[in-house]
Amino acid sequence: MKKPKYHVFICSSSRINGQQKGFCHSKNSVNLLEEFMEEIEERGLGGDVLVTHTGCFGICEKGPVVVVYPHNVWYGGVTSDDIEVIMDEHIEGGSPVKSLEIN
Amino acid sequence: MKKPKYHVFICSSSRINGQQKGFCHSKNSVNLLEEFMEEIEERGLGGDVLVTHTGCFGICEKGPVVVVYPHNVWYGGVTSDDIEVIMDEHIEGGSPVKSLEIN
Repeated sequence: MKKPKYHVFICSSSRINGQQKGFCHSKNSVNLLEEFMEEIEERGLGGDVLVTHTGCFGICEKGPVVVVYPHNVWYGGVTSDDIEVIMDEHIEGGSPVKSLEIN
Repeated sequence: MKKPKYHVFICSSSRINGQQKGFCHSKNSVNLLEEFMEEIEERGLGGDVLVTHTGCFGICEKGPVVVVYPHNVWYGGVTSDDIEVIMDEHIEGGSPVKSLEIN
């Protein structure tokens, strides 16, 4: 199989009982997920960048949480306005966006 | 924040509309998730290994799918019987289990 060069995980507060409620979900993380996917498609990066939504990462107070592997970069408080800079600087530029990283 | 040394992502077929049905879910991936968590706790690795469930990875025919980052190792057709070998050889031993990797 072709592995993704960048794998973007976005907490959508999905629970294993099928419920979907939690901090990231309440902060529009589902929209964030869809906007990331659209941005990736528009840039023609669908073959290299995979986006997957997840259950809780356990750091709700830092949400919405976006994790980029294999670089192990954790972003917090991510909003729609941050997508472009993450795509430009990190996904396309190769340098994580320090100002959004969770310390 | 302390980042996980190993981050185990397990597809639970969670959908962003809150529904939870799909191939991995139908193959007991929720049990797999809980058994991985128990095994990690029993081995005292909770501080280094994080387990997160996810939505579909798009390779349902290879499911249940388990992905281990930052090593970008993709396992397919994972069952409860495989947990011990993945924990022994990969998570504790540092060598991915070739026989379970998706090619």
